[in-house]
Amino acid sequence: MSIEVIGVKGLPIIQPGDDLARLISERISIQSGDILCIASSVYSKSVGNIRQLSSINPTPEAVRIASLTHEDPSFVQAVLDSSSEIIMDCPFILSQVPSGHIGVRAGVDHSNVEDGLIILLPQDPMGAAASVRAAILKISGVDIRVILTDTCGRAFRRGQTGHAIGWSGMTGLRDFRGDHDLFGHELLITEEAVVDEIAGFANFVMGESNNGVPAVIFRNMEVWKGHDMMYFSEKEDLIREALKECQKK
Amino acid sequence: MSIEVIGVKGLPIIQPGDDLARLISERISIQSGDILCIASSVYSKSVGNIRQLSSINPTPEAVRIASLTHEDPSFVQAVLDSSSEIIMDCPFILSQVPSGHIGVRAGVDHSNVEDGLIILLPQDPMGAAASVRAAILKISGVDIRVILTDTCGRAFRRGQTGHAIGWSGMTGLRDFRGDHDLFGHELLITEEAVVDEIAGFANFVMGESNNGVPAVIFRNMEVWKGHDMMYFSEKEDLIREALKECQKK
Repeated sequence: MSIEVIGVKGLPIIQPGDDLARLISERISIQSGDILCIASSVYSKSVGNIRQLSSINPTPEAVRIASLTHEDPSFVQAVLDSSSEIIMDCPFILSQVPSGHIGVRAGVDHSNVEDGLIILLPQDPMGAAASVRAAILKISGVDIRVILTDTCGRAFRRGQTGHAIGWSGMTGLRDFRGDHDLFGHELLITEEAVVDEIAGFANFVMGESNNGVPAVIFRNMEVWKGHDMMYFSEKEDLIREALKECQKK
Repeated sequence: MSIEVIGVKGLPIIQPGDDLARLISERISIQSGDILCIASSVYSKSVGNIRQLSSINPTPEAVRIASLTHEDPSFVQAVLDSSSEIIMDCPFILSQVPSGHIGVRAGVDHSNVEDGLIILLPQDPMGAAASVRAAILKISGVDIRVILTDTCGRAFRRGQTGHAIGWSGMTGLRDFRGDHDLFGHELLITEEAVVDEIAGFANFVMGESNNGVPAVIFRNMEVWKGHDMMYFSEKEDLIREALKECQKK
């Protein structure tokens, strides 16, 4: 059976307080086992996880970094407020957020939002995905799986791709430990970040500009075994260590 | 119209000299505009881009690195031979290959291959994708698009995902420069690495162990504008620079 990937069209511009799960359910017949990917920015806006730039008072640290990155100090302050650790501050801020995700500008976004507003990443993205899943179950009576996506850069390669920020109803990684290849050898590559592979393709379907498709359904998707330890510990993360060393100079 | 994603099932274990395009065409009705993703290891094996470990004489440098990485010196020699620049040699070899791709062990693979053999990345992956596209056109009379995929790690996150190594019939990046968001603001994020988003999801469908689905068709896929400058120049690549600095110590 082939996999079907369906962009949810016709959603209005989401406003704080909107019932996102209901708006999606009204536009597409969701089926049990579907994986629903939602742009985390749209989820955040629906729950009011936004800030008004004019209400932010930048600290001297934000002003210092803003002079390096050529950004609005209030925007930089919002990035600092969203971050649990700053890994680099120049030529752009790279930081970790409390969920463990590491990204540029802590995922704070001022595209696809009204002037003067910024959208923050969900503070508890796993809980956010679980809440969408629970809402769909309540509205439609079907148990689905949910991924919240964000658009991120990567090492060594130009261009952004979709990544999974939070997920519910599945593990983030598919674990092949103990499996064997076609020739019976035990596998060396044991973990596949399947939620990121799904989030990436969802991001392709969403488009990045004014397509207005912030939700994508994946149908006929298999079930896998695995775990949710998506983020390296500091000790394991060679690239994080190298970047921090370079920033010290 | 929804997108259909179809794993090509029933392919035999590919051997050097096999006509991969014909074997795929015999198992699925390919349509004009389809995007066909193929695991680069399977392409490489079909064109004999493999080496026998016992025929490799490791240099002292390969022996030195192998003692650090706890690998077979002949395997390390194959990685060095495939690399245009070694970025790190410990705890694993991270290197650039002539096409510009940067990856662990230069993509040299000893899974899903007979004992004593290793599979190399295609030496000209863009040309390889173009040759598969031309072969499908000749066999089936349809003009399709082709992506060769490989499985790679990433920064900051555990687990591997599929990446595009070569592609034909499309640009690697979708370019939004000049586009505007829903509110009319010019976009800050201007480049999306769409071939990687597609390759990632293809890798999910392929599975990583003994599923034996090395080819995946994407149907009803839009056409986009963009460019093929996938790899950062050395000067732009902050992470590469940071890793090289750390290796010097």
